[in-house]
Amino acid sequence: MRYLITFSYDGSKFKGYQKQPRLKTVQGEIEHALKTMSKTSISVHASGRTDAGVHALNQKAHFDLNMDIEPEKLVKALNSLISEYIYIKDAEIVPDDFHARFNVKAKEYIYKINMGEYNPIEKDYVYQYNENLDLAEMERALKYLEGTHDFKSFSKADDEKEDFVRTIVQTNLFRDPKSVNMFTISFLGTGFLRYQVRNMVGVLIEIGEGKRKSEDIIDILAAKDRRKAGITANPEGLYLKDVFY
Amino acid sequence: MRYLITFSYDGSKFKGYQKQPRLKTVQGEIEHALKTMSKTSISVHASGRTDAGVHALNQKAHFDLNMDIEPEKLVKALNSLISEYIYIKDAEIVPDDFHARFNVKAKEYIYKINMGEYNPIEKDYVYQYNENLDLAEMERALKYLEGTHDFKSFSKADDEKEDFVRTIVQTNLFRDPKSVNMFTISFLGTGFLRYQVRNMVGVLIEIGEGKRKSEDIIDILAAKDRRKAGITANPEGLYLKDVFY
Repeated sequence: MRYLITFSYDGSKFKGYQKQPRLKTVQGEIEHALKTMSKTSISVHASGRTDAGVHALNQKAHFDLNMDIEPEKLVKALNSLISEYIYIKDAEIVPDDFHARFNVKAKEYIYKINMGEYNPIEKDYVYQYNENLDLAEMERALKYLEGTHDFKSFSKADDEKEDFVRTIVQTNLFRDPKSVNMFTISFLGTGFLRYQVRNMVGVLIEIGEGKRKSEDIIDILAAKDRRKAGITANPEGLYLKDVFY
Repeated sequence: MRYLITFSYDGSKFKGYQKQPRLKTVQGEIEHALKTMSKTSISVHASGRTDAGVHALNQKAHFDLNMDIEPEKLVKALNSLISEYIYIKDAEIVPDDFHARFNVKAKEYIYKINMGEYNPIEKDYVYQYNENLDLAEMERALKYLEGTHDFKSFSKADDEKEDFVRTIVQTNLFRDPKSVNMFTISFLGTGFLRYQVRNMVGVLIEIGEGKRKSEDIIDILAAKDRRKAGITANPEGLYLKDVFY
């Protein structure tokens, strides 16, 4: 029986999503809980990995169980066995040929930034820039990122992938209703390269600072050269919000 | 020169405010930073301690420095030397007879509760009750707590204090503008007993659950008996919000 689970986690408590020997990872925790439950080793296949410090609100993963357990019971059993910093929100039975990574239609990421005073309570949950940014100019820049582009300039420096073309369906920048200094940028796309969101945010911050103009995005995309973009924004502001099939 | 500092911290990262040998505490961190800076041992006197897991948004403390440093420079120096989970927001020079604890006129605490789905990302920052509570009944109960009362029923069980009379000036219950499932209770008072806020919240939750009525507060206060109240609510929902002099 193939199950698809939806789960959230606090990325600051793990060395990334992907299993690594002797390190506490999200995948490692889930596979360990499944092994405890089923007495067999089970491989968990997520929609994609998230890097150390990156959070997930609705990550998805599939796995096969050689037992027939009701999805609700599976959710309860797993939550009772895993770290309190991971929460299984839902489980459903999917066809045997369903794949949590290959079947992804779209993903949404959000990135949270605090322009106000440093807050130690949100250290691991928000990128604390602590200076004013020109949000209107950043919103204009976001529009240049939308659409189908070769995002090589925004990829991981040593990525040896052949195809850097991805489609960003929609972007948004919205202020927090509770605080004028907090805002969130969202990216809905059919797929993302490794570090792409954080590299795009790095350039967006430089645009907000006035160091670059929104239309510079056009040249950065055209260059297909990682060196034309800027810093990789910190992981703590990034959340995998949704995965669509 | 006597300085008064205002600071915030993430209580989940420390074994409480108060210094303890070999444990990471907020006071220990600040005193260590002051020692590094001044080359002498300096005692820090806070408005009061907070227990392990309890956060502070604007805690206050005073200390004496045998050097004349501008408050702004002191803030920068301390922040460069302490944990990123503590942030010195402000410093000011106060008279030599000012005392951060004895001069307190009022304190405000807030307590955050999530009635919605468990969120692992807020595990250490909100009390996750995850069931609906009758907020209107809880608001009525809050009104019975306001005023000057003997709060012995809400004190720490083995507290050998002689005087349990305290005044709660104002209480409020407000829903989070971003989420219908999140709400915050605030308590402004001239002073609080140890565990008092968490013990009051424990009873308020039972009232919200329908296990008790709001007017039961009258009997609980009159009993002056810790056993008449309920559980001590978890530390992670509690924040020392402000201290007034």
